[in-house]
Amino acid sequence: MAFGHITPETLGLFTDLYEIRMMEGYLAADHTAEATFSLFFRKLPPHRGYVVAAGLEQVIAALEDLSFGERALSYLAAQDVGEELLSFLEDFSFSGEVRAIPEGTVVFPNEPMVEVTAPIAEAQLLETLLINQIAFPSLIATKAARMRDVIDRKGNDQTLVDFGSRRAHGTDAGIKAGRAAYVGGFDGTSNLAAGEAFDVPVYGTMAHSWVQSFPTERAAFEAFVDVFGDDSVLLIDTYDTVNGAETAVEVAEEAGVDLAGVRLDSGDLAALSQEVAPIVGDADVFISSGMDEYAIADFFEDGGVGDGFGPGTALVTSTDAPKLEGVYKLVAVEEDGEFVPSMKLSTGKVSYPGQKSVRRIEGADGFESDVLAARGESGPGEELLVTVYEGGELVYTPPDLDAIRERRAEQVGALPSGVRKIRDPAEYPVEVSDDLEATTDSLQSDLEDRYLD
Amino acid sequence: MAFGHITPETLGLFTDLYEIRMMEGYLAADHTAEATFSLFFRKLPPHRGYVVAAGLEQVIAALEDLSFGERALSYLAAQDVGEELLSFLEDFSFSGEVRAIPEGTVVFPNEPMVEVTAPIAEAQLLETLLINQIAFPSLIATKAARMRDVIDRKGNDQTLVDFGSRRAHGTDAGIKAGRAAYVGGFDGTSNLAAGEAFDVPVYGTMAHSWVQSFPTERAAFEAFVDVFGDDSVLLIDTYDTVNGAETAVEVAEEAGVDLAGVRLDSGDLAALSQEVAPIVGDADVFISSGMDEYAIADFFEDGGVGDGFGPGTALVTSTDAPKLEGVYKLVAVEEDGEFVPSMKLSTGKVSYPGQKSVRRIEGADGFESDVLAARGESGPGEELLVTVYEGGELVYTPPDLDAIRERRAEQVGALPSGVRKIRDPAEYPVEVSDDLEATTDSLQSDLEDRYLD
Repeated sequence: MAFGHITPETLGLFTDLYEIRMMEGYLAADHTAEATFSLFFRKLPPHRGYVVAAGLEQVIAALEDLSFGERALSYLAAQDVGEELLSFLEDFSFSGEVRAIPEGTVVFPNEPMVEVTAPIAEAQLLETLLINQIAFPSLIATKAARMRDVIDRKGNDQTLVDFGSRRAHGTDAGIKAGRAAYVGGFDGTSNLAAGEAFDVPVYGTMAHSWVQSFPTERAAFEAFVDVFGDDSVLLIDTYDTVNGAETAVEVAEEAGVDLAGVRLDSGDLAALSQEVAPIVGDADVFISSGMDEYAIADFFEDGGVGDGFGPGTALVTSTDAPKLEGVYKLVAVEEDGEFVPSMKLSTGKVSYPGQKSVRRIEGADGFESDVLAARGESGPGEELLVTVYEGGELVYTPPDLDAIRERRAEQVGALPSGVRKIRDPAEYPVEVSDDLEATTDSLQSDLEDRYLD
Repeated sequence: MAFGHITPETLGLFTDLYEIRMMEGYLAADHTAEATFSLFFRKLPPHRGYVVAAGLEQVIAALEDLSFGERALSYLAAQDVGEELLSFLEDFSFSGEVRAIPEGTVVFPNEPMVEVTAPIAEAQLLETLLINQIAFPSLIATKAARMRDVIDRKGNDQTLVDFGSRRAHGTDAGIKAGRAAYVGGFDGTSNLAAGEAFDVPVYGTMAHSWVQSFPTERAAFEAFVDVFGDDSVLLIDTYDTVNGAETAVEVAEEAGVDLAGVRLDSGDLAALSQEVAPIVGDADVFISSGMDEYAIADFFEDGGVGDGFGPGTALVTSTDAPKLEGVYKLVAVEEDGEFVPSMKLSTGKVSYPGQKSVRRIEGADGFESDVLAARGESGPGEELLVTVYEGGELVYTPPDLDAIRERRAEQVGALPSGVRKIRDPAEYPVEVSDDLEATTDSLQSDLEDRYLD
């Protein structure tokens, strides 16, 4: 029986067989040129005006950890992987360059979130793991940022806690969603493994099972308050929400306790919160069940009164847009010391060739546009790509989570307001430099001349 | 920097703080009664007529592994968890009963996929981990089964390979989707870590980067065929698909190689497959890019010709229905040796109280209906719940993956054809026994009398 933990021992196997086959081929063909791969997405997910970059720290941790021990190598040998590649992998350690856009930065289609330059076999190996570690956290940080932004634009400051790990797609998603939500502006997570792994604050109240397991709701509240005193947050909707609120207040008064809060988890949450808030006085009103950016906006619209929200499934699966289609595409191959831009013509899947620069142009009112250009091309604006690895050496110190959160807040705040809308957002302008456009056009015509009838 | 691997060392922390707070409360209140929790879903995901149960083997592996070592305990201590619970966890090993519906079985709303009976603190601890390990694999096995069923009902037998791990929500989802897809009727996965963890066959071809990294497509094909001979599957859409097919055939002929296949990854796949198939002769035509049950059905409808499909993102994120909202609800509490049914009244979230039996009634043409009843209630049909743990001892031998695959095939094949439709499926009848209905009604009126004004 296998639970199937991915551990540092098997992390190297988190790749696709075709990467391994190609690596064997590159080695056999003595094809050792350096190549540059660009990790980006072609389209924003539905309803999204921007994506918040996240996951770079995990990419770095993975590159630091990546190695092939006995267990991985013997599995590969059993898949008929030849001696040459096995010994290459046995000695594997990343020797290349990585440039990336820091976590918390807003990014747009075609902008390289990560750019890897290394001997082609090495760069190829990383495709699956890097996309996996960037796309999902960015998807969730974006979902979280949209919720925080709905609250910010209302001039409010409700607590947001990730309640989703049970519904996340596996354990890795469960904990990484906790981190990504925090990057996106959440205050913490309910999941202890996420808290432990990433030093994210953890929050928790009680479940219906607590209430049901006592003879009466009152007895359940009394027992909880008896143990947790002023820290108690009581779940009041097991039988009847308003009745539950009254019982909670009575129990607290009798015990001489200042309730920290009550939680509502079903029914017409906006209406119930209006009834409950005056009953519970200074205690916080915490809202869960089906919360996301749309539900939070509706809650405010309907006059709901709450001090915090606990989004779960909709956050950790990004239900309304569950995929960010990150790709990792070969954009340049070294030839006689020069990086020659490369592209494909596949219908609907063309991408800009060459190593890139992404510059962001800021005016008095915030971000105005981005420019996608060839690496080294000069122009106005701030370069977003920073160097992370040089010659296999980590040359970048990742900011701590609080600095990343701050960057996210500043970045989202600097976007044009239309781009921040949660429905039908405006398109943020990403211009392609004249030089990059010219390179793309000329490479495309050349390929069309050579391959199209 | 933390990658955030979940390992046996931190698996116990994959729970929510509220479970831990409630456990502290149960211990402090000396509330040690046994309780039964039922893991089920209330509604089928959109477009789904059934769910294929998966993940039970991982639940067992987790229960076997679950313990709290130094690292987990010191984190909990830092969260102000008291000595009493810390020492309880230090000695933790599951002591209860688990009943479950075997993997590969089709299941419907309100049917307990897992039922746990244990001292309440113990049973409570498992909520987050168990839902996480059952709901996602079942979601993906279901998605996969729908694709296999579209092919089966067409009388076809195309190869189905999971290509999705790069777009899965984290590494755990990446590998567990590979296993779940196999349960659902796929032939294998591209991901090596999934293959290694669960002994699922792995498949792989080449990427566009291989083709682009050589001076010409012809040179790229020559180099690949030179290394892999008859095993070569060449990706032919980098520049022009039909042109690529011709080049592939020429290269193979010159090298004296029988190509295993070609892969198409963009454009009008049905139309291109019709052009390509006669060119490549005996070589397989493998189709990827945006494949799922709908795209496969459309491909057939449009006269596409293919020997295999490589669904990716749509499979591993179950894009059209990315969540299966598994819940884990207290249904009974032991009182003087009897298990007393329990329920809540929360609006829209009521569930059937008590320990359960699920029976499936089969006629000459397959499954006719299920009956949800109280545990021990007699009646017609086969009982679906099997005993997995008794007094903390594993008493169940999980079938191997091939047996699970076979069960899935038989189960889906025995469903009424309307239930198998991929759009607007018919509702499969799940009846509630008279006794269970009566218990539910009487408990509900009792609670309404006590709590509703």
